[in-house]
Formats: sequence, structure tokens, C-alpha cells
Amino acid sequence: MRPSGREADALRRVSFERAVSRHAEGSCLVKFGHTHVLCTATIEERTPPWLKGQGKGWVTAEYGMLPRATTERTRREAASGRQSGRTQEIQRLIGRSLRAVMDLQLLGERQILVDCDVLQADGGTRTAAITGAWVALKDAVDWMQARDMVNASPLSDQVAAVSCGLYGGEAVLDLDYEEDSEADADANFVMTGAGGIVEIQCTAETSAFSEDDFAKLMSLAKKGIAELTELQKMAVA
Amino acid sequence: MRPSGREADALRRVSFERAVSRHAEGSCLVKFGHTHVLCTATIEERTPPWLKGQGKGWVTAEYGMLPRATTERTRREAASGRQSGRTQEIQRLIGRSLRAVMDLQLLGERQILVDCDVLQADGGTRTAAITGAWVALKDAVDWMQARDMVNASPLSDQVAAVSCGLYGGEAVLDLDYEEDSEADADANFVMTGAGGIVEIQCTAETSAFSEDDFAKLMSLAKKGIAELTELQKMAVA
Amino acid sequence: MRPSGREADALRRVSFERAVSRHAEGSCLVKFGHTHVLCTATIEERTPPWLKGQGKGWVTAEYGMLPRATTERTRREAASGRQSGRTQEIQRLIGRSLRAVMDLQLLGERQILVDCDVLQADGGTRTAAITGAWVALKDAVDWMQARDMVNASPLSDQVAAVSCGLYGGEAVLDLDYEEDSEADADANFVMTGAGGIVEIQCTAETSAFSEDDFAKLMSLAKKGIAELTELQKMAVA
Amino acid sequence: MRPSGREADALRRVSFERAVSRHAEGSCLVKFGHTHVLCTATIEERTPPWLKGQGKGWVTAEYGMLPRATTERTRREAASGRQSGRTQEIQRLIGRSLRAVMDLQLLGERQILVDCDVLQADGGTRTAAITGAWVALKDAVDWMQARDMVNASPLSDQVAAVSCGLYGGEAVLDLDYEEDSEADADANFVMTGAGGIVEIQCTAETSAFSEDDFAKLMSLAKKGIAELTELQKMAVA
Amino acid sequence: MRPSGREADALRRVSFERAVSRHAEGSCLVKFGHTHVLCTATIEERTPPWLKGQGKGWVTAEYGMLPRATTERTRREAASGRQSGRTQEIQRLIGRSLRAVMDLQLLGERQILVDCDVLQADGGTRTAAITGAWVALKDAVDWMQARDMVNASPLSDQVAAVSCGLYGGEAVLDLDYEEDSEADADANFVMTGAGGIVEIQCTAETSAFSEDDFAKLMSLAKKGIAELTELQKMAVA
Amino acid sequence: MRPSGREADALRRVSFERAVSRHAEGSCLVKFGHTHVLCTATIEERTPPWLKGQGKGWVTAEYGMLPRATTERTRREAASGRQSGRTQEIQRLIGRSLRAVMDLQLLGERQILVDCDVLQADGGTRTAAITGAWVALKDAVDWMQARDMVNASPLSDQVAAVSCGLYGGEAVLDLDYEEDSEADADANFVMTGAGGIVEIQCTAETSAFSEDDFAKLMSLAKKGIAELTELQKMAVA
Repeated sequence: MRPSGREADALRRVSFERAVSRHAEGSCLVKFGHTHVLCTATIEERTPPWLKGQGKGWVTAEYGMLPRATTERTRREAASGRQSGRTQEIQRLIGRSLRAVMDLQLLGERQILVDCDVLQADGGTRTAAITGAWVALKDAVDWMQARDMVNASPLSDQVAAVSCGLYGGEAVLDLDYEEDSEADADANFVMTGAGGIVEIQCTAETSAFSEDDFAKLMSLAKKGIAELTELQKMAVA
Repeated sequence: MRPSGREADALRRVSFERAVSRHAEGSCLVKFGHTHVLCTATIEERTPPWLKGQGKGWVTAEYGMLPRATTERTRREAASGRQSGRTQEIQRLIGRSLRAVMDLQLLGERQILVDCDVLQADGGTRTAAITGAWVALKDAVDWMQARDMVNASPLSDQVAAVSCGLYGGEAVLDLDYEEDSEADADANFVMTGAGGIVEIQCTAETSAFSEDDFAKLMSLAKKGIAELTELQKMAVA
Repeated sequence: MRPSGREADALRRVSFERAVSRHAEGSCLVKFGHTHVLCTATIEERTPPWLKGQGKGWVTAEYGMLPRATTERTRREAASGRQSGRTQEIQRLIGRSLRAVMDLQLLGERQILVDCDVLQADGGTRTAAITGAWVALKDAVDWMQARDMVNASPLSDQVAAVSCGLYGGEAVLDLDYEEDSEADADANFVMTGAGGIVEIQCTAETSAFSEDDFAKLMSLAKKGIAELTELQKMAVA
Repeated sequence: MRPSGREADALRRVSFERAVSRHAEGSCLVKFGHTHVLCTATIEERTPPWLKGQGKGWVTAEYGMLPRATTERTRREAASGRQSGRTQEIQRLIGRSLRAVMDLQLLGERQILVDCDVLQADGGTRTAAITGAWVALKDAVDWMQARDMVNASPLSDQVAAVSCGLYGGEAVLDLDYEEDSEADADANFVMTGAGGIVEIQCTAETSAFSEDDFAKLMSLAKKGIAELTELQKMAVA
Repeated sequence: MRPSGREADALRRVSFERAVSRHAEGSCLVKFGHTHVLCTATIEERTPPWLKGQGKGWVTAEYGMLPRATTERTRREAASGRQSGRTQEIQRLIGRSLRAVMDLQLLGERQILVDCDVLQADGGTRTAAITGAWVALKDAVDWMQARDMVNASPLSDQVAAVSCGLYGGEAVLDLDYEEDSEADADANFVMTGAGGIVEIQCTAETSAFSEDDFAKLMSLAKKGIAELTELQKMAVA
Repeated sequence: MRPSGREADALRRVSFERAVSRHAEGSCLVKFGHTHVLCTATIEERTPPWLKGQGKGWVTAEYGMLPRATTERTRREAASGRQSGRTQEIQRLIGRSLRAVMDLQLLGERQILVDCDVLQADGGTRTAAITGAWVALKDAVDWMQARDMVNASPLSDQVAAVSCGLYGGEAVLDLDYEEDSEADADANFVMTGAGGIVEIQCTAETSAFSEDDFAKLMSLAKKGIAELTELQKMAVA
């Protein structure tokens, strides 16, 4: 039995609230249960220096967490003067995931900066961030299309992410914090709307696990991501 | 005529949403028009090192702004590796303002950390932050009283803040960003529920101003803060 | 009775020593009693990047304190790797104060960098710094005029600053360290030679104070600054 | 055809040179073809602060690269003042991988610090580092056993890692730099001697890939890691 | 002919002004011509952590330069967030030089922190700093003796320093900035009152120099330092 | 008697292994006994910004030490976020030493970056680094000549370095760590193949030493460096 009473293959209640920022070209407040992430997409008419003059653009992501998004207050990274290894790992993952469905040539010589800030955390912040960031990105791309800034949409597909894990010996979908902190294995899957794999990160927490266990996690992830991309579609419809 | 159509002495629409954080002992999402600040109050059972063993506590504040809270995206302070001078000024001001109505002896050897994070900015973020932080602080103090952690409430009074400025030759209350960026003088007043002065910061933006102008700003501030403390009272009732 | 035996409205002994630096275009060693600040003004034939091509200049200030300027040695900021919030607040204040009497259009596309380094501290370092910095700035402007670098003096007025506070229930002028550390309220006023207000910073240290108290502080400040601008005039004559 | 002429399922020439450091408790210079990593294991009789008093130990890893380990010189991280996100990701991965085969209770209240420094890079530095680090760790554990510092060996199994990728449409094992920089997908697998999965990191570089492709990568990885653990066994025999 | 008209073996005008700081236990403003360095000695009743419990003390030095001490303004190290390699070299040299004449056992478990801040620079700041720092240190030691904090003076001798160089083919003593920037070789000598060598740093600027040249520099240094220790004696008499 | 049993004027066993890096234009693994330093020379077709357009080049050096190169593990400088004063001193010394035998005009508008990384330390890392760096530099210069990038070799001479010290009252050559940590004086000499002096750094560790002692150290150094330049010649032949 999961602490939340959910079935092993059940997502938490997921919602997307669009246009939550008065200033950003695209924005989305995504909720996976009690995990709330504010995603904004900013269009900048310049590329990173190392891409200059190549006729294509870039999508980059930054990730942050409000100090009291967590049960115990976490030290503010701006105050400690550096982003933790965990933060850097997550923002690199979000950026890679979004670029996997973005045609950088079609985007042209501009950059889209996606900020994912966790307002409240209850496990799965990186997967919620990726899933919500796609919605913000879609709105920013529509914003560009409405202004004839791009000839065709540079977004080739949807992308969404979900966590799975081995909890109490069983494979479960979309772990909340309580499950996450006691899981024997923890995996994050990022997939496209068409079902292609973008990223798999799978880690044994206590001891190594079997190929069979991994297959169960993968199977749950496919189901969960199919549901998430369906919800994204409804959100941007 | 103000850009917003407001009267010279009119506040923006102000609202307080309490208990917005599942984790924090006290929390409040305060809105001054389009300026939205998420305030959380965290109780820690230890004091700053320099206060150890003196039988009293401390209230400290941190301030941050989401990168796309602003019209143009601002660089993330965690990424640049330092808090700007502006950020440090503001968080010091919030801390001083809250301590002015807090009996640190009654609080006991513990610390309350107040985080004020601007989700969306349209001028007056520091005054909204102080005003909302008091509400979060009040809830955190009530939380302690409900648990018999303090003998009496260490909160001696309310505290609220508002900006005033000289805009187009006229003294106006609670400037939004459009007014703020063109004001000839810019002032922030922090006062208690009883009308005592906690802090005045008043700056000439273009050229020096007269004592008479200052008196007009002070008068507007008193009116505005009286309204804000009334709204706080209703919010925590 | 004040610890120094001064009258409530008496400044400390104030002196300005000009041309103390062999290298700087303008320089002044200002003393407010035992508070000694070395101010230098450096002219640079380039503006900050964000001002480039706008046909006008800038005045910026930096503030520092020698480690043993204080009773207890303070850690060297260069060694700790960052300027404190206090340092940043003060240098921003000095810069704003000087710019209030500087016509940036007349200055042309150049920058004046004013360094204020406290050699010895006994309270009121920021007000001494502003008052002495104006003398250094004046000499640097004269240096430019002697070389026909500007058509007319970009300095439109004098600027000076003084602290006031509530000490032992009484409003007093120009607090020394002993008074400052026990004051109930602490205020810094920056005004022009013509009596215009440039900046007011007023803070309750223990509890909120009344509007009437504030009026007394303001009145003392006007008297003190009138004397300081008179002394500046004599110094640069 | 692979640039190196290797078969799709062929490892590069792998070697382990033990006891290369006069000072470290365990050390190993591991070579995967032209990728050379110097691994040292240091035993410290204290744990990280957050583990104090819990009766168990920790294994942590640090990763670095000499500036000219790469084709183009890379900026020295000590000079730039920070470790890159990539470095932090890798050292966290190495640490997790080693802890998966370490009984922290048996280790006792001490810490083993494993340093992996890349002397020369040609792709697959993190997998070579993990595989070589295990050898250094084994020697450090033997060193402790020879001194009766532990009752039984805290090392429960071997751990090794290898990269796989989709190169020119084909799944290949143990990519060198030339393959790595053009691969369509890039995966790192960490497994134990018993064949358990410790970590999977799999990333689409150009576009999403299929579950079938992933299965091919996994199959190659199992073969490669089986060979690597065999080679480790011979090295420490 | 030297730019200053001095003889090859002539020091600049040297002066020591003691007790220039109201707060420091010892202080000295030393002038070597236009090079002015403010030295303060601070006594702290604790040792560096690594010396704790060994029954002896330490002398450490810090060095800084006001931004406009130089002909062209130098960036403030506190603002750039780090001390330059040059600064660190110099402060390590000053510390070593002072410790060479200090009996750390007699000093007891305390630390003397010597701050050397260059108010104006014209070459030879490190040698002036060492020479003046000794005077500040002597006064701090006398301060301790007057309070019976030490049984006997821990200062075993004087220490002073001077620069020499090859300028225009000739060996000259105590280079000013104009000479220093064109010298073919540049040397700093630190010696005791008894004529013992504490430190020699000698660098070829353009091309290697001969042993004979070095002998000439050494000879000048001995003469110069003998004069400086004589002047120190008069200063502290 | 020296701990190693060496004669007072005997170097440790010295060896140079060239072309140890597959990527660098020049490289050398130098060993002075148990002190092993990996030196690489990288040619970059751009100069430092401050040298731009002057028609000449630059040689710069960086120095690092693997964390477990030492008996006790040293904290990784990339992790601590800054290079120590010692590291900066050493890399500045290496750079100066190499430039002393380099004709920067002949080098042209390019930079040679020499990285010296200590793989294992047993005293004398800086002198080994300089001596080995020259070999790497020579190979990089030959590499340029083979490609007709320079008209003539910009290397005007050899340069090598050795340490000397007073150990147990006797002057000895090329100190290992055991001697170094107990020496009464410690000196590093850098000289050219022609016997010219490039740099002398000589420090009293416990108490000042005499001019006569210094002469003995200088004499040993000359002998040692003559042997080292002979070995360099054989290595590059």
C-alpha cells in the first residue's frame, strides 16, 4: 500500500495553469499533487556566444527552489553563492529534454530561456518541471508564430517526464516525497509524445536491482507519460 | 493623471492569501496590484551564533526575485554567484522592520526566518514584502502559541509599508513600475499599527526636493499604511 | 549629557585636507572628530557599458574600511571574498548623493570614480564620506575645467551629509560611535547647499518613534548640513 | 565501421596499474584505450559532519581533468573558481556507484575519499573512472583489513561501468571521443559483479530513440561490464 | 643618473609616524619617499585553529592597496572578490619576515595580525611595509609588556627590508616606481638588525644576470638595511 | 647524513619522459626522485588581451597538485573555489622563469600555456616543474618550427631550477620532503644554460642565516643546475 493510497500505476492529480506570468512570453504553473513548479519561457533575440553566426538557436533551462519549498528550510542558493550539484544536474536535464523536441534551425538565431522555480516540493520536482516547461515553451512558440517570427513551429513533438521507483518491493509510478525518501531505486524517464525515449536516469538507492525490475519501471513510465502528454494536449488546446 | 487612473492617494488592490505553503509555519501570498510576493516564516530552534546564550531570539529576512518576475528577464542571483547590493539592502530592511514589532526576549532562543520571494514585479516589491511578511510572521507566532512554545505573543504590534513618490510634479501613493521608473523622488515608509515610524527611506531621483514635498509624501504614507494595517487585521481575523 | 560633552546640536570638529593623493585628480582627507575618511576622485575616459553612446557620463562610488579602523578588528573584505551588505548600501548611497548635484550631460562620456576609504572609524563614516567626497569631486571637476575638458562645470551645487539620532531620549546631531551604538533611532540626511533634500534614511533601533521626534531630527540635520556646506566652501576657496 | 576498426561489441584495450601512488592507501591508473585516469583512495578517520555519531561511514568521490587532457585545452577549474555542472554530475555518479557495493556499517565511522583525475581523455572518462576507482577502493579496503581496522571487508561486490551509444545507426560499446561526439544516443551503465544494475544514464543526443534501441544498448553493456569485472578480478588477484 | 637624482646607494627620505591609529595596539605610518603605508598591529587572544593547544602564538600579515594609491586606478580587491596572486605573495612575505624575529613560544597562545595598507604607492611598497610593520609590532609588544601579558619581550631582533635593482646597467638602492618599471633586475632583501638574512627575492626582468651583478645588489642591500634599522631604532626610542 | 643517504651535493635521480600526452604540442613527465610532475605546453593562436596588437607573444604557466599527491590528502583547489597563495606564487615563478629564455617577439602573436600538474610530491615540486616545463616548451617550439610557424626558434637558452637548503647545519642540494620540512633555510634557484641567474628565492625558516651560508647554497645550486641542463640536453637530443 502506498502512503497516499494510490494504485501502483496511478499518477498524482496533475494540472497546468497557463499564462500565470504577466511578463513572460510563455508560462505555466504545473502541479503534480503537492509539487508546484512555476515555469516561464523567455525569448531573447541573441544566442549563447559559442553559437553565434551558425544560423540556429538554443533552448536553455534554469532550475531553482524557494527556500521553504521543502519540509525543512533549504539554504538559499543565491545566499550560499553557488548552485548545488543537484541543481545543476536538474537544469541540464530540463534543457536537454526540451531541446530534444525543438528544431534549433527553425528557431533561428535566438534563445529561449526556461526558468523552473519550485514553489512547493513533494517529490518529483524535475519531472513536473520538464512536463510543465513544455507547456510554457509551447505558448512561447505560439507567441512567436503569432508575430511571424518563425516560418513554421520549431516544436516537433511534446515531451514529458515522470518518476518511477521500487517502493516496499513494488514498482510504483510518480513517487511523492515520502515514497522517494525510502525507495530502493529511483528512476526518471523523459519521453516524447510519439513515445520515443529522450532520457533515462535510474539509480539504485540501497542495493543493485535486476533487469526485470527495470523493465517494470520502464513499463510504468510509458503509461504515465502517455497520460501526461494527453493532459498537456488538453491544456494547450 | 496617473497611468493606472488611480487617485493620487489610492492604493492598488491589495490582497493577502494565507497558508499558501504546506510546509511553512506561517505563509502569505501578498498582492499589491500586479506585484505578487510569496512570504514564508520558518521557525528554527536555534539562534544565530553571535546571539547564543543571551536568552533571546532573532528575526531575519531573505529576499529574492524569480528571474522572469520582471519585464525583462533578470539574471538569477544563484547563477551569478552573489546577491546584488539591491537585494541585500531590501532583505536587511525587511528584517529590521519585522524586528521593530517583535519582542526578542519573549521569542526565546529561536530564530524566525522570513523568506520573501517576488513571483511577479510591478513596483513596490519591498513594501509589499514587508506588509505580507507581517501576516506570515503572525501566523508563525500563532503556531508557536498553539503549541505553548511561548508564554505570550512576542508580536507587539503590526507593521506595514508603502511607497510614495513625486510623479509628474505630484505626490502619489503606492507607485507601480511605470510611475516608479519616471518618478522625481521615491520614498518608502515603514510604520506600525499604532502609527509609529519604523523606517523612512527617501531618495531624490533627478534633483533635490523640498521639505514641503517630503511632508506631502509623509502624509500620503500615513494614510496608506493606516489602510494596509486595517487590511492586515481583516486578513488575520 | 552627551559622552563627548557636546551640545545636542553641535558637530564634531570637522576638517578637510585637500590634495592628499599624488595620483588622483581630486582627493580629500575628511575628519569628523575621530572618524577619518580618505576620498579620491578618479576621472576615466569611458562610461559604464550600459551608458555607452548616450552622450552622458556617470559618477560611481566605492567604500571600504581598513581592517583596524574599528575598535575590534574587522575582517578584510578582500580576504573574505565579498563586500558586505552594509558596504554595498553605503557605496550606493554615496554614489546617488554625488550624482544628485552632477549634471551628467555636461560631464560628457566619462566616469568619475570616487573611492572613500575609512582610515579610522568613530561613527558617521558614511556621512563624513559623502561630505569629503564632494570636496574631492570638486577638485577633480576643477582639474577637468583647467584642461578644457568640459565647457562648464557639471557640478550644480554642493552636497553634504550628517547623522542625527535619539540618544537618551534627546535628539542629537552627528553621533559618535558611543552614542550610535546606544541610540534609539538613527538617521542620515543628505542635503544640497541650497537646502534641498537628496536622501533621508531613518531607522528605529529599539522601538518605533513619533513624527514629532522625526521633525526634531530633521531640524538638527538642516542646521548641521548648513554648517558643513559652509566649511566645504571655505575648504575649496 | 567504427573509426577505430573495432567490432560493435568490442571494448578498447583496458589495463589497470595498481599502487601508482606512494602516498595513497589504494591507487590505480586505469586505461580504456587512450583514456587514462589516475584513481586514489584515501582513508580518513572521520565522517562528514551530517553522519557523525551514526556508527557508519561514507565513500565520496571527486573528479577532475588536467587542462590538456583534452584535444583543445580546457580551462582549469581551480582557476575559474568553480567546478562545472558536468564535473559535479560525474563525481556524484562515481560516489553513488561505489557506495552501492560498500557496506557503510561495516566500514565504521570513517570516510574513504576517492579522487579520479583524468590525465588523458578520449571518451568514456566517467566509466573508466568508476571501473578503476573500484580497484583503488579494493586496495584501500585490503590495507584496512591488513591493519585489523575492520572486522570483515565492507566491499560486498565489484562495480564497473561502460558507455554504449548509437553511432551511425548501430549500437556500439565503449565509445571513444570520435564516436561520442557524433553519437545519436549516449548511455552509461554501472553494474555489479553479480550483474545487478546500479545506475543507467541514457540520453538522446539528436532525436528520441526507441525502446528497441535501448534494449540493444543494455545488452552490449552487460557484455562489456562482464568483461570489465573479469579484468578487475585479474588485476586485484 | 637616476630619475630622482639620488646617488646609486641612497635611500629615499624615510620616516616613521607612530600611534597613528586610535584603536590598534601598535601602529605606524611609514614613508619611503612617496610610498606611504599604514601599518597596524592587532593582538588577538586566540591562535589560528591549526596551532591550538601547542602553547605558542603566531604573527600573520595582510596587505592591501587603496584603489587610487597607484598612478592608474587599480580595481578594488574587495569588489573583484579575490586577492591577486601579487597581494598574496606580499602578505605571505611580510608574515614570514616578522616571524623571523619573533619568539612564538614567548608570545604565548595569541595571534598578532599586522595589516599593511598602502595609501600611496611609488615603488617598494612591500619593503616599506615590512620595515614599518616592525615598528607597529614593536609598539604592540610593548603594549603587552606594559600589561604584564608576556614575561619577556618575544621580539628577538629588528627586521627591515629594501629593494635593489639593475637600472640602466647600474646597481641602485631603493627603486622608485619609475626605476622599477624599467629595471633589468629587481631584488628584495629582508635582513635583521644583526645583519642576518631573512629573505632574498631576486628576479631577472629582461634577461638573466650574472653572479657579479647579484653581489653588487646584495652589497647595496646590506648598506640600506643598516640605515633602516638605525632609523627604526630612533623611531621607537 | 641526509635521510636519503645522498651526498650533500647530490641530486636525486632525475628523468624526463617526453611526448606523454597524445594531445599537447609538447609534454614531459619529469621526475626528481619521488616528485613527479606532468608538464604540457599548449600553443594558442591568440595573446592575452593586454598584449593585443603589439606584435609579440606570451608564455604563461599554471600549476596544480592532485589532491593525494601529498602524504596527507590536500583539499582540491577546484572544490574550494580558489587557488591558494602558494599555488599562485609557484605558477607566477614558473611563467617568469620560462619567459626569461623566450624571445617574445620571435614567438609572434600567440601564447604558450604551460600546465604543470604534480602527480606525486616529495619536495621540490616547483623546481622539478620549471626544469620539466622547459623540455615540454622545447618540444612545442620544435613543433612550431616543423610547421614553419616561426622564422627562428624563440627559445634563446635552456632554463632549469633546483632547491638548496640548510639541513642539520649543512648546506645540501635538492631537498626531499623530509629534509624540506626540517630545513633551517630553504632556497630555490633558477638559472639558464649559460649560467645566468633568472631567479633566487631564499627564505629563513627558523632564524636568519649568514651571507656565508648563502654563498654555500648558491655554489651548490650552480653545480646542480649545470647537471640538470646537461640532462635536459640529453633528453631533447
